[in-house]
Amino acid sequence: MDPSRLRALTFDVFGTVVDWRGSLIREGEVLGAAKGLKMDWARFADAWRAGYAPAMDRVRRGELPWTKLDHLHRMILDTLLDDFTITALSEAEKDHLNRVWHRLQPWPDAIEGLTRLRRRFILATLSNGNVALLVNMAKHAGLPWDCILSAELAHRYKRDPEVYRLAAELLDLRPEQILMVAAHQDDLQAARQVGFRTAFVRRPLEYGPEATPDLTTDPSFDGVVDDFHALADRLGA
Amino acid sequence: MDPSRLRALTFDVFGTVVDWRGSLIREGEVLGAAKGLKMDWARFADAWRAGYAPAMDRVRRGELPWTKLDHLHRMILDTLLDDFTITALSEAEKDHLNRVWHRLQPWPDAIEGLTRLRRRFILATLSNGNVALLVNMAKHAGLPWDCILSAELAHRYKRDPEVYRLAAELLDLRPEQILMVAAHQDDLQAARQVGFRTAFVRRPLEYGPEATPDLTTDPSFDGVVDDFHALADRLGA
Repeated sequence: MDPSRLRALTFDVFGTVVDWRGSLIREGEVLGAAKGLKMDWARFADAWRAGYAPAMDRVRRGELPWTKLDHLHRMILDTLLDDFTITALSEAEKDHLNRVWHRLQPWPDAIEGLTRLRRRFILATLSNGNVALLVNMAKHAGLPWDCILSAELAHRYKRDPEVYRLAAELLDLRPEQILMVAAHQDDLQAARQVGFRTAFVRRPLEYGPEATPDLTTDPSFDGVVDDFHALADRLGA
Repeated sequence: MDPSRLRALTFDVFGTVVDWRGSLIREGEVLGAAKGLKMDWARFADAWRAGYAPAMDRVRRGELPWTKLDHLHRMILDTLLDDFTITALSEAEKDHLNRVWHRLQPWPDAIEGLTRLRRRFILATLSNGNVALLVNMAKHAGLPWDCILSAELAHRYKRDPEVYRLAAELLDLRPEQILMVAAHQDDLQAARQVGFRTAFVRRPLEYGPEATPDLTTDPSFDGVVDDFHALADRLGA
């Protein structure tokens, strides 16, 4: 990982920068207490996230026209509210709950690590989250991005190569000047196919304290780190 | 201008946020001293900017395919170097000079005004500058944007309505929740056609101290201010 050749870092967001699962559970518990819902919010969070890849696949296969992630999240949420027989929420409350994805909390190292990295590099999101979701999240959590890049700009979802190619085009950089940072190996593999450099960040708690993710990493990644402090150290930032 | 209904402010950049003319003259003079060029850099700056609208019109009419502003600037620059018989620049020096547009200096009120406004609103660029130009400019000058929006994302130049419509779509806001801020009345008129609110900022020095711009404003604008401090005052930020 030669930092002298890098100009920009693009970040996966859900799971890599923010703890979607912990954030969903915390908000769910507050909502549950307010509305008298007896719920396993961890199971709810996992079910919501489990609907994400299949929903994007429907867009990818053309079964749905381009649909921004907020709307996919809402489609999944409506199904879950049925499945969990939650009937006490008004439309405004459902909309607010759906926007929990705009209010996700960063991992403890994220803001300080990004602030260090930003002194040396251009920092951009490169997320399946839609632009408004990412802008609101950054404002809510204080994430110091230079640029919000999103699958929405390509009307394609990662891991389609067009998303990474458009990011390089918009940043006006050669792919090898960009480091994709993600906690998901398939995201990095797709970025590498387009010519990006790759850094894997271990986020063993993404799926909760009981999950036992396989953190064996593809040896072709340019770097593997435990958090954004370590990434900043590795990149001399 | 009712701030309670506004969620985002979108800014024209060249002339509204940054002083392109003064910045070009200053860099030109430094370059001229280094290379022994005897030049009227104010005339050079004005000529470069004068090439901008006709170049975008070529894209608009389909005579050129979509071309990002950096490349239009370079086409104009190459012509100017001929016109001004400047032959002493290497390719790297020409490229560096062309990127002077990435290094423009903000008007004196801009950063403090934007910093105030950002506490209350989402702040986005909405410029004909390409994304990389705007990202580099923000990093260089310390402009505190939440989001970089550009004509490049629509593959259309302002004042085409698609540029404003795409901004509203990406911010996921109704047009009337967005205030377009610009020093150019036709930009505001085009934004208003799409439903945006409008604030005109007087920048009497945009074309230099000798210019006598007509600052009579279209009475249909929602606000007219002298700088970004005044805008922040008006919007309660």
